[in-house]
Parts: sequence; C-alpha cells; structure tokens
Amino acid sequence: MTLKVYLSGEIHTDWRERIIAGAEGLDVSFDSPVTDHEASDDCGVAILGAEDDKYWHDHKGAMVNAIRTRKGLEEADVVVVRFGEKYRQWNAAFDAGYAAALGKSLIILQRPEHDHALKEVDAAALAMAREPEQVVDILRYVLTGKLPA
Amino acid sequence: MTLKVYLSGEIHTDWRERIIAGAEGLDVSFDSPVTDHEASDDCGVAILGAEDDKYWHDHKGAMVNAIRTRKGLEEADVVVVRFGEKYRQWNAAFDAGYAAALGKSLIILQRPEHDHALKEVDAAALAMAREPEQVVDILRYVLTGKLPA
Amino acid sequence: MTLKVYLSGEIHTDWRERIIAGAEGLDVSFDSPVTDHEASDDCGVAILGAEDDKYWHDHKGAMVNAIRTRKGLEEADVVVVRFGEKYRQWNAAFDAGYAAALGKSLIILQRPEHDHALKEVDAAALAMAREPEQVVDILRYVLTGKLPA
Amino acid sequence: MTLKVYLSGEIHTDWRERIIAGAEGLDVSFDSPVTDHEASDDCGVAILGAEDDKYWHDHKGAMVNAIRTRKGLEEADVVVVRFGEKYRQWNAAFDAGYAAALGKSLIILQRPEHDHALKEVDAAALAMAREPEQVVDILRYVLTGKLPA
Amino acid sequence: MTLKVYLSGEIHTDWRERIIAGAEGLDVSFDSPVTDHEASDDCGVAILGAEDDKYWHDHKGAMVNAIRTRKGLEEADVVVVRFGEKYRQWNAAFDAGYAAALGKSLIILQRPEHDHALKEVDAAALAMAREPEQVVDILRYVLTGKLPA
Amino acid sequence: MTLKVYLSGEIHTDWRERIIAGAEGLDVSFDSPVTDHEASDDCGVAILGAEDDKYWHDHKGAMVNAIRTRKGLEEADVVVVRFGEKYRQWNAAFDAGYAAALGKSLIILQRPEHDHALKEVDAAALAMAREPEQVVDILRYVLTGKLPA
Amino acid sequence: MTLKVYLSGEIHTDWRERIIAGAEGLDVSFDSPVTDHEASDDCGVAILGAEDDKYWHDHKGAMVNAIRTRKGLEEADVVVVRFGEKYRQWNAAFDAGYAAALGKSLIILQRPEHDHALKEVDAAALAMAREPEQVVDILRYVLTGKLPA
Amino acid sequence: MTLKVYLSGEIHTDWRERIIAGAEGLDVSFDSPVTDHEASDDCGVAILGAEDDKYWHDHKGAMVNAIRTRKGLEEADVVVVRFGEKYRQWNAAFDAGYAAALGKSLIILQRPEHDHALKEVDAAALAMAREPEQVVDILRYVLTGKLPA
Repeated sequence: MTLKVYLSGEIHTDWRERIIAGAEGLDVSFDSPVTDHEASDDCGVAILGAEDDKYWHDHKGAMVNAIRTRKGLEEADVVVVRFGEKYRQWNAAFDAGYAAALGKSLIILQRPEHDHALKEVDAAALAMAREPEQVVDILRYVLTGKLPA
Repeated sequence: MTLKVYLSGEIHTDWRERIIAGAEGLDVSFDSPVTDHEASDDCGVAILGAEDDKYWHDHKGAMVNAIRTRKGLEEADVVVVRFGEKYRQWNAAFDAGYAAALGKSLIILQRPEHDHALKEVDAAALAMAREPEQVVDILRYVLTGKLPA
Repeated sequence: MTLKVYLSGEIHTDWRERIIAGAEGLDVSFDSPVTDHEASDDCGVAILGAEDDKYWHDHKGAMVNAIRTRKGLEEADVVVVRFGEKYRQWNAAFDAGYAAALGKSLIILQRPEHDHALKEVDAAALAMAREPEQVVDILRYVLTGKLPA
Repeated sequence: MTLKVYLSGEIHTDWRERIIAGAEGLDVSFDSPVTDHEASDDCGVAILGAEDDKYWHDHKGAMVNAIRTRKGLEEADVVVVRFGEKYRQWNAAFDAGYAAALGKSLIILQRPEHDHALKEVDAAALAMAREPEQVVDILRYVLTGKLPA
Repeated sequence: MTLKVYLSGEIHTDWRERIIAGAEGLDVSFDSPVTDHEASDDCGVAILGAEDDKYWHDHKGAMVNAIRTRKGLEEADVVVVRFGEKYRQWNAAFDAGYAAALGKSLIILQRPEHDHALKEVDAAALAMAREPEQVVDILRYVLTGKLPA
Repeated sequence: MTLKVYLSGEIHTDWRERIIAGAEGLDVSFDSPVTDHEASDDCGVAILGAEDDKYWHDHKGAMVNAIRTRKGLEEADVVVVRFGEKYRQWNAAFDAGYAAALGKSLIILQRPEHDHALKEVDAAALAMAREPEQVVDILRYVLTGKLPA
Repeated sequence: MTLKVYLSGEIHTDWRERIIAGAEGLDVSFDSPVTDHEASDDCGVAILGAEDDKYWHDHKGAMVNAIRTRKGLEEADVVVVRFGEKYRQWNAAFDAGYAAALGKSLIILQRPEHDHALKEVDAAALAMAREPEQVVDILRYVLTGKLPA
Repeated sequence: MTLKVYLSGEIHTDWRERIIAGAEGLDVSFDSPVTDHEASDDCGVAILGAEDDKYWHDHKGAMVNAIRTRKGLEEADVVVVRFGEKYRQWNAAFDAGYAAALGKSLIILQRPEHDHALKEVDAAALAMAREPEQVVDILRYVLTGKLPA
C-alpha cells in the first residue's frame, strides 16, 4: 500500500518538513500547494500580465494556484489540513470541504483553542491531531500496523 | 426553471431574510443550516446525551448538523456563502469547498476587506457580491432574464 | 426540506412504528425492507419456483429482496440501521456499509453492549442513538431546528 | 491483467496467509486491515491521546483504521470477506456492503452454518467459497484461465 | 415507494401488456422502446432524410431510438429484458448490459432453452422469470410485501 | 415519459419559437439561455458593478450566465444545439461538448455548408437536423412513436 | 499514449491473434475473457463444487467469469466486440452495452449480414469494422497518426 | 507531481512544439489530436471503406478521431485549447466544453480579438494566455513554484 498525502493549509511554520522528515522510509508521497507566499500571491500577474484592480490580480493568481491544488486534492488518499495561528485561513477550510466532498480521508492538525470553531471541519475528518508527529504516527500505523513505542 | 438555493454562512445578520424577501415571486426554494446558534451548538448532547469532554460535545452536534448541511448542499443548484464580520467562519469556507467539489454554482457574499483572504474561495465561484440584493438580482436574472432597472 | 429515511435492520420489535408515529407531522417519508420474516425468506421460490438446495432457495429470495433494499438505500437521505438482540444481523451491517459507500447520512440505533462490536459501523455514522425516540428528535431538529424540550 | 485483492474480515485464523501463499507466482497484490487485534483496538488513543469514555476510545481507533480500510476497499478489484466462528463480525459485513456499493467483485468465504444468515451478503457476491484454497483457484482461473487439476 | 420499470426486448408478443395489466393498482410506472417495428426501423430517414446506403438508413434510426432507450434505461429502477423466440435480439442483450453497468435491478424473462446462452446476462440479474406474471408478482412483492396466494 | 430539452446556440432567428410551438401538446419542457443579447452581455456588470477592463466585463457576465446554462444542460434529457449563420458561436460548440461529456442525447441543428466544420460535434450527436420542425418530429416520435405523415 | 484494449465476443476463430499480432510494436495492451470454452463453462463448479441443476452450474461459472470480464471492460480504453457466425452471442452484445454505458470507445467487428440486427449496437460504437486488420489500422492510427499505405 | 497535458485546437502553427520544447525538463507528458490535417480528415474511409456521401465520409473520420481525443481529454490534468486565426474551430470549443464538464483544469490560448467571442469558454478556464510561452510558465510554476525571472 502506497499513500498519497496532500498537505494543505498554514505555510509559515515547519509542520510540512516535520511530517515529511518523520515519514522517511514509509511508502508515502507528499504534495502541497506552492508555499512561497509571494510567488503564490503574484503568480497570475507575473505570468499572464498585470491587472490594475487588486481583485483581479488576486483572482488570476488564485486560479493558477487552483491547477495545483485541485490536482493535489483529487489524487490524494489522505488530506492533512493544518490550521495555524495567523491569518483567516479560509483557503485551508475550503480545501477541507473540497476534500470531504471527494470522500478523502481527512486529518485536521489544529490547536485546542480552535476546537469549537473547527467543529464542523473536524466532524468530517477521520483524525484530529495536535502535532505533526501524530500525523506521522498515523501514516506509519496505517501503512505498517506499528504503533509508537 | 426552478432554482434550489442553499444559504450558507454567517448567522448573525438578516442577509437570509433580505434574499428570501427579495426573491418573492421568483421560482426559487431556499434551504439553510439551523440558524439558532445555541440549538446548533447543543443539538448533539441535547438529543443523544451529555458529554464530559467539550470536544465530543461539539463533535456530536456538528455531526447532527451535517445531516442537514450535506442534504442542503447536495440538492442545491446555487450555493450562496456569506462571510460576515465576526468569528472565524471556517464552516462557511468548508461549505464553499464542499459545494465547489460537487460542481455547484457558487456565489460568495463578502466585504471588500476580505477580498484577499477569500481569493481562493472566490476563484471557485461564479459571482462575488457585496449585498444580499445583488444575489436577488442574480437569481432574478438567471430565472427571467431581467436585469435591475 | 423533505427527508427520505430508510429504516434498515432488526424486524422483531416495534422500533419502526415508534419512529414513524413520532415523526408524524414532519416532512419525512419512510421506506423499509419487507418486514414479514417468512415472506422475506420465501419470496424467491414462491414467485420464481422451488429449489431443492436451501442455498439457492435463500439466494433467490435475497436477490428479490435486494430490488427493494437497493432502491430504498439509494434514494434515502438518511439511513437508520437498528441492531437488535437476536440473530447475527449481518444484513443490517451490510446495509450500513452500502449506505456509507453511497455517502448517505447514517444513524445507528444500538444497545451499549454492542458498542465495541459496532465501532467500525459507528465510525461511519453521523449519530449513534439508543432509543427510536432519539431518531425522531434528530429528524425533527434537522427539519425544524427545534430541540426536545 | 493484475488483480488487486483486499482481504477483509476474520483475523484469528491463517486464511490470509493461505491465500497469499497459494497465489504465489500469480499477478496479484494483496491488502488487508491491520490484523494485530490489540493495535487495531488502541491505535486511536495510542496516537491521538487517551479518552475517559470507552466509546470515544473505540471511535478514535475505528476512524484511524478506516483510513486504511477505505483505501484498501476503494482500490481493490476483488474484495474477499471471510466470516469466521467468533465474534459478531459486523465490520466484515460492513466492508462487504461498502464493496458492493462500489461495484467491486465480491467473494465471500464462509461456513455452511452461516449460509442463511449471510444470504443478503452472498446475493451481492460473485462467488461463495468454503476454503481459502478455493479463493486461490478463482484468482488463478481469472488471471490465467487454468482450472485446478 | 414508486417503481419505474423499463420493459426492454422482444416486441412481437403481448408480454408488456400482460405485465402492465397485471400491475394495475400498484405504484409502478412503465416505459418501453417504440414497439411499432416499422416505425422503429424507419424513424431516422422518415424524419431526417433518406439514405442510399442501408447501413446509414439503419444507423440514423437506431440513433433516434437511442434517445428514448437511454432515457428509459437511465431513469428506471427496474429493467425487465425479455428474450423471445425470433430474431437475434442483440439489442435486448445490449440493453441488459447497459442496465447492468448502471447498477439497475435487472429481471430477465426467458425460455428454458436459452438458459445456457443467457448465463452471463442472468448472472447480472436479480431475477430470472419464465412468465410475465412472475414479473408482476415480483413488482407486487417489492412494493407491498405480499406474495402470490 | 417527460422530456426536458435544452435549446442552446444561435439567438437571432426564431428557431426556438418554432420548436416550442411545434411541440405543443407533447410532454416536453424547454429551457434555454437568456436570449436577450444585450442583457446577456451586460448582466455581470449591471448587477455586480462596472469594470474598466472589457475582458472582466465580459467575464463577469459569462459567469453569471453560466449559472443558468449549467443548470439547463445538467438537467436536460436532450440538448439541441443550433449553429446559425452569424458570429463565431464558440459558446454553442462549448455547450455541445459539455453536454456530450455529461452523456446527454445531443441533436445538432445546422446548415449543410457547416457539415465539415461540425463533423466532430456531429459525431457526438444522436441526430443532425436541418430544420427546427425535424427536431419537433424527433421529440414527437421519441415520446409517442408517431412518425410524420 | 498507451491504449488498453479489451477483446470481447466470439471465441472460435483467430481474430484475437490477428489483432494482437498486427498490433506488435504499438503501445497497446490487450485483455480478453477466458477463451477456453470448456473451462469457461465449468469454472464455477470445478472450483466451488458441483451443482445438480444445470442452471446453477451455469450461473456459478458465469459469475466467476464476470470477475475477469468486468475488470477487463472497466479498465479498457477501447472495447472491441466481435460477432461471429455461430451461437447467439448474447454475452457479446451484453458486453457492448456494458461498455457503452461506461462511456468506452467501442469498435464492433461484424459481417454485413448482421448489419440490421446490430444497428443499435453499432449506433453506440465509434467504428464498425469487417476485418481484424481494420481494428489494427485504427489502433495504429489512434496511437501514431499513420494511415495504412 | 506529474502533469498530463492535452493540447487541443489549432493545428496550423507551431504552438504545440513551442510548449513541448519550453517544458523540457519539467515532469509533464503531452498528448494531442492527430495534427496531420489530411490524415485526420480521411482516416475513417481510409481504414473502414469509402463513402459516397461526404457527410458520412466526415462522420466516420470524426468518430475514429474521437477515440484518441476522448482518451486524451479524459486522462489529462490540464487541457490547453488554442484558438487560432483560421477556420471555425468548433472542435476546439467542443473540446473545451467537454473538458469543462469533466472538471479539468482548462487553459485557453487566444488572441485579443477573440476575447468577446470566447467569453463563455474563458469563464470555464483557470487561465487565459496569449502566448505558448505563458502556458509553459504556468506549467513550470504549478510543478516547481518558480516564476519567470
């Protein structure tokens, strides 16, 4: 069994690196959105031409990013969505809803203070974790049946 | 043509009432989540028994609410998602993602200060409106071809 | 909103009648399998001709019953599966799995002593109830937003 | 032609080993649930934190196991479900229903005394076998056209 | 429960009339292909213009008939396919295969001398009947739970 | 049998009216895009606010129109696409492709001089007609089995 | 581009060998049903135990064969169905219907005397060929753009 | 992440070559229709036999080409549709509609003078580009996160 895992959400801490490093040796492949914040914001106009209106500037970029995001979500077996401390993170919740509608196995990675606000998202998930290492433990268990010592 | 419209998101202003009143006479039916905040928070434990742990209290309620939400989203032709001023509103963004993955026609109702934060959500929508009356205008135009005077 | 509810599982107590009576006045329609045990066992051979071999006797009947069961499950918004005290009830669990794969909202009605044995089934459900009246309360809440007093 | 086979159900006898050994040399890959009973029961709390309530202890584990089970069922060409002598085995019947709804080719492995109780499950299957070696014979025939001598 | 039944296959005996008459009073609606043999053969050229080549004459007609056939098959809950004594009836078997792939409940109505030739078709069906009245009995049982006296 | 028919394509001649009038008395319901050319071009900015850039002016309108078009195409049993003499009509061909991918019964209404240019579109259709009255004849035949005298 | 081709239908001439030999060097993989007539008839009872009743003897075999047939049809890009001179060949027409409903590219290989009887089947196909070598020419053209000299 | 890209539309300029050359080194595979105009027009009759009627000549060819086109569209992650200066290009718009209905990520490559005529097509796309090199830039960004210098 090989698991394809999509790592969605917060891009300002090292949670993706910790999961990828922790999963070394397991039969897992990872995808994620472009995590370079500036490139992600400007990709639309940088490639397809400038816009006077900030709304369309953002729109063109969000549509180009959607090519990668949709592909990543649609091909994943497991979608991990991380909610962090900063920003509104509506794109993270959007990805979670998108993944849920596609029937993906959803793991939410979040802080206790967000439990109430995320209750609908958690209700669609198969696991709610606090730390990236718990996601690694889940992947290891799912693939090998081994629990953490 | 009859349109089934699901009104998702913010529950603390009268935007739903304004859309429903404005659409009087049009061939539209509306559904929405339970908008009684307290009932929505407590439905799980009120019906299925108390929980010591707040997480499971929330979880049971969110799952019961999902029966209604999923049905509303899956049967809708048009899903309107309203982002308001208060709270994190991750369930609104989750519904938008869920609707997008189902291929629903999505209309986002939002304030200008959220344009950047909602750019991925808007990129999946067929319209971004500022006022409930614009949603009514869209419904009227879609059903009758008439534009506002 | 109208809910189509399929009542699957145990056929030796009055749980279906209690739910149907309790839901009077709500916008719900109910379907269930044929609950006449003998007719259900013998329908295949009674209509299509006797079989010497008990296995094929059962098989013909189970296939005729599947016409009704599949239709009921596929058209339902909510599938309630009741696990009782008697028999092995593998057909109840089969229906639950079938409904889960179709993405139906699943409510399991069961006794505490079966909690462990039903944990995989419960994990696919949106509610686990002990009494038929709780199912009625869920249907009422989902349709009207009213909680039990 | 390569067959992906998911081996669901009973975990206390060596039926999986007998099928996998018998299929050596055939173009088949096998998946199964975690068959370490204790790890399977405790994986949720071992990874995601203890629960006071046994119901949620079980629930968390069942959801983590579902990541593997769903993936195995959804990717399989053939789902073999073994019903044994012990326990209620509702998860086995659940998997059979799940596989049936996905249109998988289903093989049921069961004892004669369960024929009547399993008639609805068998009615959704393409083969009912008594011994693991018969499953091997089916796989060999499907892949090579060779019948047992 | 209302059943939509599509009556496919042989058009030279009164089997459809016998089923429809027998089902009077039951909550069933019936569809069938155009059973006027000549109109069915010539509809393409009669409406869309003559063809010199008999192959295209037939082709245009078959495509027009497909508008009705596909609609009937796709909307049906139950597809009854009758194999008669005359002609090759490949369109009947084609409809059976089409219905099977759509997951419809299939009932085959056939004579014993065709059992071997129809074994693959029967293997995809939930019932094999000899007489139209048995189909009526199935429909009555599925809808009301009543067996023939 | 009731047919839902979507009338896509050219909006400058009376072909829709001729089909709808001709089909009077048949069990057909019709939908079409908004055929007021100006309203269709301007609906986006008229409702959602002006745009400086003509591209986004068009874009907003096309997206609002898509709410109606997608609904009409997705609910139709039969999609009739008319190619006329004027304009590039890429939206007509787009609708035909959209309908084909959804498996709709497609009827193309076109002039002989476009036969070569439309060959890929025709290859996905069940009928190619020259006059609106032929479409009426097809609908009548499909619903009643009657051919034109 | 790699094409997966399923070769269904007649098993008494060398048409499969001619196609496979002709396609040497092309990026095609072929699957077919078990073409050993006797093994195909008896596989059910040979593996799963004898039946007194010929109907169930046939049934068990047809169900085992369906494991291979469904897999071959569902994974194919192109389904070639050959109608020969002998037998009723209802399973060939069944496979054609099954493939059509799955949206597969269908090529029918048939003799002119069957044109009328196969008109509904041909109407669902993208090509009707007389000789296996024409199927090879189609595969070569589809993969390489080269036409026969 | 590997992207499968289908290059549809105009066949008289070197836009495909420019994209393929520009994408060298990226993890992309490309498919396209047969771009030899003459072979594409004549493939049907060249392989399957001449037709007197030009309509059926074209029809046979278009159906054979559809085997390749459908496969390319259905397997693609990204569909690029180029609208050029010559011909009516309805097949390009048809492919765009087909891809949109399948939920593919669509990139339209077009000239400014076609903006208005293509507004419905653009409204279904995630990017509208003027030059093939912009498509390369999108593919590079989607796969590597790198923007053009």
